[in-house]
Amino acid sequence: MIQPLEPTVSPEAKKPYSLDSEKVESATREWLLKRGVTLDKIAEIVMFLQQKYFPELTMEYCIYNVEQVLNKREVQNAVLTGIQLDIMAEEGKLIPALQEMVENDESLYGVDEVLAFSIVNVYGSIGFTNFGYVDKLKPGILEKLNDKQDGQIHTFLDDIVGAIAAAASSRIAHRKQAEREKEMEQLRQK
Amino acid sequence: MIQPLEPTVSPEAKKPYSLDSEKVESATREWLLKRGVTLDKIAEIVMFLQQKYFPELTMEYCIYNVEQVLNKREVQNAVLTGIQLDIMAEEGKLIPALQEMVENDESLYGVDEVLAFSIVNVYGSIGFTNFGYVDKLKPGILEKLNDKQDGQIHTFLDDIVGAIAAAASSRIAHRKQAEREKEMEQLRQK
Amino acid sequence: MIQPLEPTVSPEAKKPYSLDSEKVESATREWLLKRGVTLDKIAEIVMFLQQKYFPELTMEYCIYNVEQVLNKREVQNAVLTGIQLDIMAEEGKLIPALQEMVENDESLYGVDEVLAFSIVNVYGSIGFTNFGYVDKLKPGILEKLNDKQDGQIHTFLDDIVGAIAAAASSRIAHRKQAEREKEMEQLRQK
Amino acid sequence: MIQPLEPTVSPEAKKPYSLDSEKVESATREWLLKRGVTLDKIAEIVMFLQQKYFPELTMEYCIYNVEQVLNKREVQNAVLTGIQLDIMAEEGKLIPALQEMVENDESLYGVDEVLAFSIVNVYGSIGFTNFGYVDKLKPGILEKLNDKQDGQIHTFLDDIVGAIAAAASSRIAHRKQAEREKEMEQLRQK
Repeated sequence: MIQPLEPTVSPEAKKPYSLDSEKVESATREWLLKRGVTLDKIAEIVMFLQQKYFPELTMEYCIYNVEQVLNKREVQNAVLTGIQLDIMAEEGKLIPALQEMVENDESLYGVDEVLAFSIVNVYGSIGFTNFGYVDKLKPGILEKLNDKQDGQIHTFLDDIVGAIAAAASSRIAHRKQAEREKEMEQLRQK
Repeated sequence: MIQPLEPTVSPEAKKPYSLDSEKVESATREWLLKRGVTLDKIAEIVMFLQQKYFPELTMEYCIYNVEQVLNKREVQNAVLTGIQLDIMAEEGKLIPALQEMVENDESLYGVDEVLAFSIVNVYGSIGFTNFGYVDKLKPGILEKLNDKQDGQIHTFLDDIVGAIAAAASSRIAHRKQAEREKEMEQLRQK
Repeated sequence: MIQPLEPTVSPEAKKPYSLDSEKVESATREWLLKRGVTLDKIAEIVMFLQQKYFPELTMEYCIYNVEQVLNKREVQNAVLTGIQLDIMAEEGKLIPALQEMVENDESLYGVDEVLAFSIVNVYGSIGFTNFGYVDKLKPGILEKLNDKQDGQIHTFLDDIVGAIAAAASSRIAHRKQAEREKEMEQLRQK
Repeated sequence: MIQPLEPTVSPEAKKPYSLDSEKVESATREWLLKRGVTLDKIAEIVMFLQQKYFPELTMEYCIYNVEQVLNKREVQNAVLTGIQLDIMAEEGKLIPALQEMVENDESLYGVDEVLAFSIVNVYGSIGFTNFGYVDKLKPGILEKLNDKQDGQIHTFLDDIVGAIAAAASSRIAHRKQAEREKEMEQLRQK
């Protein structure tokens, strides 16, 4: 299964490994969809978090910022890894001790939060507060993901979606500041 | 100001440096008090966070857990460093660019959250959610610390107090689990 | 697969879920062994890291500290999750885009480091340096785990083992300081 | 000292606060220089870390990547805050318990590593290893910053400089991957 260090020339030889970033990115988008998470649903949480600070905020701009977050490699890696663990738990294939914790969204497990934090961190520590807030209130799709009645397991995905929304909110806050400073600069130059 | 590597014998010589953990601990308690933060006030936030999960929770037990958090070296170091920066900002002594951000609790500053997270982390990632939640809702003393009308600056302290409360909540969750498992063990042995 | 909220009384009914900490702990020890990692091998890395600071350090004391680290819930959860992902990669069962990255220990993947950090963090930020150092030098068993010639995949485990050794080193540093201060206290009292 | 919520019109009135990102950025550059840290010196550590992976690496490209890291708000905030604490320690103005720890670069202090990590994190967890490695080996300017013989205190700055170099290294690794994939894409299209 492991690539030979010196690729052989037999016709069946696997190609030497090389990271395929596009494949990782498209798998991320595809798997979010397969697990019921559209960009719109994440953008709704962003709107929930940011509307009071930026009343002019549009859903289009929220979706755009969610997309920018999803373009980040660290985010894609955390999304795929978390969804993978959710799926394996659904199939009952995890090590029993781990299976029980993931299956039951054990509150003392914590690895779901650890993965979520590698997402939030993408735009710095200012997103921590927003992540914790939505993780507690479970607005919009987070409530559905956290509803354990439909046989699906989203122990990782609900934290991941909250983290993407928190990161997108941080991104918006940074951009809005940049816009504000640009406008003030233009005012000064008049 | 720096200690000589080989301590000299002159009578005025400074003692060679050696960390005095007790001094750091008592300074932490003292400075929290000086800045208006009693253990009770932090314990109230813990109660706010944990009451719904553990209805039998007492203020005494919340205070006890806050004290255990404050016994941790990492927590003491973050508390003292944060309060120090708040004080320097009050005295207007920071580098001007930094002074403005700390003085105005700039939401894009983020170093206050970074310090807070080194506190929350003391009992693992399960505290992140509680930290974000109280940092948003500002219950109890957090509202007062965040009220910028009295000339005092608590840019770091309000995050620090929320983080101590979140860490104490995590500690309680871990201990309650241990108690529960002990009881079940005793039931099995009957 | 999800536990019913109200346990039914049929004889085949699954017991209502309750975290079994002992099961998680013993699975952690067992799986480390199954993957070729003994406490001795981790203790050797601790010795490598700490010997120059504490020449009196014994292997027994290193092993003892590794055991204390392994008693921490956050550490157990990260170990089981990481080993699980390594095993699934060995079996070729991951989502293809993820499979390629884990199988090839892709340096831009980073989720292995994220999990490792939740371990290092258990005794605070002072362990980060030791983690990075052994992750680069790969002393002792880390070299073997990182050797991709034997068909086994240890993308997560090599970082996890380095992180446990770094955390044990931090624990030793904290304890040695406590001993030192106790001795000085006794000297003062004579 | 706190800004009035409604700006008054008296001629001496302070302008209402608004974050001035350019001021923060130029203060960051200026203070690094004042403390003896040029972009070249940081770039040398990047070269030390990355040369074996990318033999074609030039100092110009290393400097460019250091500059990109320094353009990040989180990095600027951590740099200014860390240097501020170093300066206050040099002037002996910290709370005594804190003064002793910062002045003596106490290894159990850890807040310097916490700040450093908010810098490393800017390009994800892949930088942790490089940070730990240079923090241990102290190549180039890190040795000088860590030399406690000249009366200057760089308890925070040495970790900060290592963190900037580690972040720049991560940035290079991400960009080199992008270049590689672009080239392969072009080869396929021929």
